[in-house]
Amino acid sequence: MDNKISRGLEGVVVCETSISFINGKAGKLSYRGIPVETLASNSSFEETAYLLWNDHLPNRLELQELERKLREARELPREVLKVLFDLPKDLHYMDVLKTILSLIGALDWRNSKDLYETAIKITSILPTIIAYYYRYSNDLKIIPPNPSLNHIENFYWMCFENLEDEEFIEALESCLILHMEQGLNASTFSSLVIGSTLSDMYSCVVGALGALKGSLHGGANERVLNMLEEVGAINNVEKYVEESFKLKRRIMGFGHRVYKTYDPRAVYIKELLKSVITDHNDELYKYLKIAEKLEEILVNNPVKRLYPNIDLYSGIFYSYLGFPRKMFTALFALSRVVGWTAHVIEYTKNNRLFRPSSKYIGSMHKDYTPIDER
Amino acid sequence: MDNKISRGLEGVVVCETSISFINGKAGKLSYRGIPVETLASNSSFEETAYLLWNDHLPNRLELQELERKLREARELPREVLKVLFDLPKDLHYMDVLKTILSLIGALDWRNSKDLYETAIKITSILPTIIAYYYRYSNDLKIIPPNPSLNHIENFYWMCFENLEDEEFIEALESCLILHMEQGLNASTFSSLVIGSTLSDMYSCVVGALGALKGSLHGGANERVLNMLEEVGAINNVEKYVEESFKLKRRIMGFGHRVYKTYDPRAVYIKELLKSVITDHNDELYKYLKIAEKLEEILVNNPVKRLYPNIDLYSGIFYSYLGFPRKMFTALFALSRVVGWTAHVIEYTKNNRLFRPSSKYIGSMHKDYTPIDER
Repeated sequence: MDNKISRGLEGVVVCETSISFINGKAGKLSYRGIPVETLASNSSFEETAYLLWNDHLPNRLELQELERKLREARELPREVLKVLFDLPKDLHYMDVLKTILSLIGALDWRNSKDLYETAIKITSILPTIIAYYYRYSNDLKIIPPNPSLNHIENFYWMCFENLEDEEFIEALESCLILHMEQGLNASTFSSLVIGSTLSDMYSCVVGALGALKGSLHGGANERVLNMLEEVGAINNVEKYVEESFKLKRRIMGFGHRVYKTYDPRAVYIKELLKSVITDHNDELYKYLKIAEKLEEILVNNPVKRLYPNIDLYSGIFYSYLGFPRKMFTALFALSRVVGWTAHVIEYTKNNRLFRPSSKYIGSMHKDYTPIDER
Repeated sequence: MDNKISRGLEGVVVCETSISFINGKAGKLSYRGIPVETLASNSSFEETAYLLWNDHLPNRLELQELERKLREARELPREVLKVLFDLPKDLHYMDVLKTILSLIGALDWRNSKDLYETAIKITSILPTIIAYYYRYSNDLKIIPPNPSLNHIENFYWMCFENLEDEEFIEALESCLILHMEQGLNASTFSSLVIGSTLSDMYSCVVGALGALKGSLHGGANERVLNMLEEVGAINNVEKYVEESFKLKRRIMGFGHRVYKTYDPRAVYIKELLKSVITDHNDELYKYLKIAEKLEEILVNNPVKRLYPNIDLYSGIFYSYLGFPRKMFTALFALSRVVGWTAHVIEYTKNNRLFRPSSKYIGSMHKDYTPIDER
């Protein structure tokens, strides 16, 4: 056994995949060979999910079949509604998602043998949990799923009971497509480790939700907004950056383990945001300007260039659409669930239980001393 | 980046640890330098947990403090009881554990910042969830925690409302101590990956429970019993082994990823079992004899020696104590939770987010064709 420690498993190849490809140096990401920008511009959420799950874009029949399944699984079982609508109203959305999905999985044990079918059910149901908890915890009337709407329209509808802002919904769909898959990040890897024991798909996704909740993973765009708020005005940006370098304070929304240049998703979402944010008196327009200024300074930083990642603009974008900050990580989950489940399906076809090693640095022999001699 | 694929991460060292050491060739396992057999014979559940969490055996004051905390956290919050006692009675124990623990964590978000304190609370509460669901799902009266009892006595009490069989309880405690920690198996590794995002301890344990549920991990002793049942009589053992080799059917309870000789825990639990199983007319005594015969044949197998692992005898042992087969994996969790949480605490002190790589084998460029051309 090699005794080198692979910290964070950086650079360690754990499996083959044909789901997505990241070229970190060039700043490119493709799903099954198709650039994400193309998919964000042309494809629906359902089509893209089908592509990630199945390795080809669906024909009309295949798409209809998937859309039908996604629509049918949207409503929560009655026992689950009872639990959801009895929760305190100040919980973390990720805790709600995790608990309620785990409950749904517990009740569904007879019908969750098939990983792919279960992936579809889970993908269908996450938006409902999020929207219901949003409405319930804000004392708003619950809006049930509308079977005439597609996946993202329906989510928006369940949240806001409004379909007027068509360009918002379209932009949201593009943004979520960009979040759908990103290789073996920590949440996807969690679901893979759990899946490798041949556990069920609910357990994999519940584990991934727990990982996404972590502040080093899914919570970043929420913290970007807190930072923009702290900066407060475009004139403070330079000072904030200088101070951050001095204090070694991390500037949120910049840098990425894989991308060593512009994160292609950041570029795309910035344009999305600019296309929807028409009201220049809005507080969020000011935040956009602060973020752009930060980007300008940090990308041209002579010591170490820092490139914006997907989180720099996505938080402002979600806020402008009306989503509360507390919900951002759940929005991420709503989309990334496709990547998680696609990886579990792929990995378990050629499964190998994960069981890494550790280097023991403790004492080799310690005596068991009776308690009164300790 | 090295393009070799580390399947299942076998032999890949992901961190340093001083929690436990396995010598797979010699068949030895120690916790913090003390052989597990010594701990199983001399130490209590609480003492051993303290040792794993803190790197030394507790003195009397430290032990009292831990015992107090474990006692105080046993009862479930009222909102949680309501959900638990409204569940269907035919659920998988691991799904119940996962769901209820996730709910407890959701409600406890204000007080779960400290990983160690949360580890204690979770360890305290898992036995209650298991015992309550056992009693509830079997239409038995609920037995609340008894603060005058220690951790394992209290668990046994909540399950059976009986403390007469002292040697059973003592043997159970020894058996659970042997299950407490075993390096970076898949469930422990799941909790580490989740913890590496700086998520909360509940999320780590909920993820680990999902992994332990998998049939390649925690479910093995349940399947050993099914196998012993299938063999049925000691005279059938040789034929069963021959057939298994011919059909390439896996013989449950033998072989281990790490131990290449006797699993020291298997040796110990076999003796425990023999010490408690006094009724030789019991069906389970027959199973013990079948298991021993299997061991005799397989250890002396001229082609490939196969050594018994911990699961060969633990299932018979739990059955003899009166635990239903469906509960076995949950019993494992009740104990292994100490290892999971100890590793999360240790790893996050010198944290590095897990983010492995994969080898892309899909197509590099695919065109986005409109749906009618697919």
